[in-house]
Amino acid sequence: MEKIKIGIVGYGNIGRGVELAVERNEDMELKAIFTRREPESVQIMTEGVPVVHMDDILSMKDEIDVMILCGGSATDLPVIGPEIVKNFNTIDSFDTHAKIPEYFADVDASAKAGGHIGIISVGWDPGMFSLNRIYAESILVQGDTYTFWGKGVSQGHSDAIRRVKGVKNAIQYTVPVEEAVEQVRSGCGPKLTTRDKHLRECYVVAEEGADLKEIEETIKNMPNYFSDYNTTVTFITEEQLKAEHSKMPHGGFVIRSGETGREGSKHVIEYSLKLDSNPEFTSSVLVCYARAAYRLSKNGDSGAKTVFDIAPGMLSMKTAEELRAQLL
Amino acid sequence: MEKIKIGIVGYGNIGRGVELAVERNEDMELKAIFTRREPESVQIMTEGVPVVHMDDILSMKDEIDVMILCGGSATDLPVIGPEIVKNFNTIDSFDTHAKIPEYFADVDASAKAGGHIGIISVGWDPGMFSLNRIYAESILVQGDTYTFWGKGVSQGHSDAIRRVKGVKNAIQYTVPVEEAVEQVRSGCGPKLTTRDKHLRECYVVAEEGADLKEIEETIKNMPNYFSDYNTTVTFITEEQLKAEHSKMPHGGFVIRSGETGREGSKHVIEYSLKLDSNPEFTSSVLVCYARAAYRLSKNGDSGAKTVFDIAPGMLSMKTAEELRAQLL
Repeated sequence: MEKIKIGIVGYGNIGRGVELAVERNEDMELKAIFTRREPESVQIMTEGVPVVHMDDILSMKDEIDVMILCGGSATDLPVIGPEIVKNFNTIDSFDTHAKIPEYFADVDASAKAGGHIGIISVGWDPGMFSLNRIYAESILVQGDTYTFWGKGVSQGHSDAIRRVKGVKNAIQYTVPVEEAVEQVRSGCGPKLTTRDKHLRECYVVAEEGADLKEIEETIKNMPNYFSDYNTTVTFITEEQLKAEHSKMPHGGFVIRSGETGREGSKHVIEYSLKLDSNPEFTSSVLVCYARAAYRLSKNGDSGAKTVFDIAPGMLSMKTAEELRAQLL
Repeated sequence: MEKIKIGIVGYGNIGRGVELAVERNEDMELKAIFTRREPESVQIMTEGVPVVHMDDILSMKDEIDVMILCGGSATDLPVIGPEIVKNFNTIDSFDTHAKIPEYFADVDASAKAGGHIGIISVGWDPGMFSLNRIYAESILVQGDTYTFWGKGVSQGHSDAIRRVKGVKNAIQYTVPVEEAVEQVRSGCGPKLTTRDKHLRECYVVAEEGADLKEIEETIKNMPNYFSDYNTTVTFITEEQLKAEHSKMPHGGFVIRSGETGREGSKHVIEYSLKLDSNPEFTSSVLVCYARAAYRLSKNGDSGAKTVFDIAPGMLSMKTAEELRAQLL
């Protein structure tokens, strides 16, 4: 069997997760990892795979079927996404929801120009949660969809706390409010505010002599990040932070309740994830969509795609016959 | 806006459910209901829609975009499925899992010959549950998938009880065993027997003077249907049956637990349904796949398809742009 040849662009948490996920898919092989750092300074886990500088990416144009872009959505992907898709099929996890239409258009133009496939915004949200929103809404046309995240670390909120004066280190967990989830599950279609849906738990390591009261108030009143939520602030030591908060669990729920028929029969559709490792799970989603990108490209298709455009059968190692016999 | 013109073939619980679901989708209209009974004897809910005899189905060849086949899987669909798809796009809920490959081949040949689309085995299992099995397995390659059904009525098992000597009427509920579901949710990947996963609750109306002890024993020892399960038999009156057991709720869970990375990070993906009306929900799934059949056919595609072959975006009333902006 000829394997699907994967390249990884960017070697952070997601890049490492993709490296591990490729190992678990026997129809794929990792061909190279691309970095902007000095290649010699990057220690990877897979023996025999070269680390290549981004400047030399085109030297591997004929050796890679799909590039998995593991950069950030804020500044990295908007630049490299449209650039790399000119020469390679790509997958990314672009997750700035408000900018998806613009990013899609940019990737689409470059992908079509280069005759490649670029699947954007793959992961669990956007990604699996988006899929569950579209399926549930298409079935139950009249209803309400609710998305809850957590319990899990929000990198953006943790960073925001770290910028507060007197804070040495910090981590923030987004926590769904149990009563709100139960209300939604009951199918009553409640109106919930931001505050009703999620709590924010902050664990903060303060600098020596810092004003703890002031740190707490600054965090709790931070607009956009915390002021619309019930927020708890707990001060801990650097050792506690390391020992108790170095994992990256996450998860969440997409729940739609809706009605059918003239008498309004009620139905509840729920999808949930409970993840030990947010980056490893996200990477596993990226890798199965790489299989779809490879197949679409082989079929002569090109342009930007999202999870909405990909038939589920494209993701599986199994043939269409096996899928019908075993999973349908 | 030009509406998608729907025909319904067969007017039982699912046919009525489709009639109601079409009402809730503003881009569709019901054009006719086809029956093998005397059309005059069939009372439908929608004013102004004709009831047409099956023998005259071809008279409406140019007036219907998609036929939703609401017949049974045992004897009805294997005959009418391949027949009708010669002249119309079709959707059905064929659910005899073991015979899906053969049925697919039959529908595929006829559909291609006629230049139409036939989407088979649509509903929630097969259907939404199948989708969740394929997505979860494609992401978590190493793991175990569990499907639980219920609490809900099994028509086949209820029928089996009704054939027992001395039984006047009966209904059977399939009930997932809570402890088994919890074990699976914990991610420990338990080995579960048939008996571990589901209970069977039977509510039986006995004929006057019947031997209740014998009925109970006969049910509990019935091979294939009950002997592999823990089964309870409760005798009730015909009035109780009518008052307390005339609804058609159902639901269930698809849960996959699996591992990623070299250290085996654990993840649990769960999809669940809680349905007031099994036929109305199934019908709502059928109707959104009718939209996909219509679009595929407009694009010039033909042949048999399953939910694995249909990109999720095809199901929605929204445009691709709206979907990316609102649901991704």
